[in-house]
Amino acid sequence: MLVREAARAQWPLEHVYVGESAAIDMDGVPVTVVADGVLERVATTITPRPVIAVGRQRLVAIEELPTATFLVVLDEISDPGNLGTIIRAAESAGADAVVVGGGVDVFNPKCVRATAGALFFTRVARVANAESALRVIGGWGMRRVGTSASAPRRYDDVDLIAPVAVVLGSEAHGLGAEVVASVDELVSIPIVGRSESLNVASAAAVLCFEVARQRRAP
Amino acid sequence: MLVREAARAQWPLEHVYVGESAAIDMDGVPVTVVADGVLERVATTITPRPVIAVGRQRLVAIEELPTATFLVVLDEISDPGNLGTIIRAAESAGADAVVVGGGVDVFNPKCVRATAGALFFTRVARVANAESALRVIGGWGMRRVGTSASAPRRYDDVDLIAPVAVVLGSEAHGLGAEVVASVDELVSIPIVGRSESLNVASAAAVLCFEVARQRRAP
Repeated sequence: MLVREAARAQWPLEHVYVGESAAIDMDGVPVTVVADGVLERVATTITPRPVIAVGRQRLVAIEELPTATFLVVLDEISDPGNLGTIIRAAESAGADAVVVGGGVDVFNPKCVRATAGALFFTRVARVANAESALRVIGGWGMRRVGTSASAPRRYDDVDLIAPVAVVLGSEAHGLGAEVVASVDELVSIPIVGRSESLNVASAAAVLCFEVARQRRAP
Repeated sequence: MLVREAARAQWPLEHVYVGESAAIDMDGVPVTVVADGVLERVATTITPRPVIAVGRQRLVAIEELPTATFLVVLDEISDPGNLGTIIRAAESAGADAVVVGGGVDVFNPKCVRATAGALFFTRVARVANAESALRVIGGWGMRRVGTSASAPRRYDDVDLIAPVAVVLGSEAHGLGAEVVASVDELVSIPIVGRSESLNVASAAAVLCFEVARQRRAP
């Protein structure tokens, strides 16, 4: 449950509202019980759980991340479900932070839900565009690896053990030209079947867990 | 575009309807041009592309798959976006077929769209429950590898080169007890971060591309 995850992550919550039929113990956060049916009218889901929390939006600045060893940089992701699923996969695979360059807002309710709480456990930086973030990241000596369906180099054929920023592009257009010009290397996930490409969140999962796999290997 | 993918796959289309402003050449399929605005009222999306195709639902029987070397078996997937995304990842990674055990209908419009056309290029079998399919698959000598967040064995520590059926469970409950009893082995994708689990479509992508990676390796 999202609110429980936010509390577990000590995310700054200001107030929690629960339906009469729900019991909740929130350490240090004011809880207000409201009549059954009220939350259903406020929530953005059709069948909400009977708990709503109000919390601050917390972001980091890109400048706070120079000691990261694993970043995920996103260029104009437009679907909130994809963005949330990518944040969940990135956090699960051990990424230090996700850098969101343009596209849909990370606090879009569908995105927050799709993170399944991972949003509270990872750092997110929001930048106007991915290429400006990549220039900063490159200045730290971190390798910037972009993904492109047509790149000849395979994603599992590059060293992902050294500090790396994995870069993924929009659903419709992939990486923008400015972003391609700002990475050190392009890799692809080879398609074995007849599909033309992978969903961007699937590609992110494959890439992030390849980082985890290489770093775990003896 | 979905209709183009269906045609490329020689999926049995019966009729295509296009808006006045759209031109389309469908080899051997009757095309009817309708007034602009008509398709918008018929389609299930808010901003549809001006093409609608009517086609048959095509499924295979599980008994048609004994020579497969890579199957993806699903147990009660409930979200159509997840189901479609899994079919897309499975087809992309080279799976011979996807076996859908219960859960949401594979011809749900959101599922069809999420496959991005992969549905037309892969074989799909629909069974009442995954465990009955796994018994048939086991009879062929194919290894059945289930996924569970708590399994001690790592997904990248098992041989996925020999014929294998990868088994994934529902978003809310993972694999059912009957399904767990019907697999040869359980594996997990180790979580490095603090998330409790991966989205099932992300897990499917990681697993399917590990099959592809092992089979590609020298």
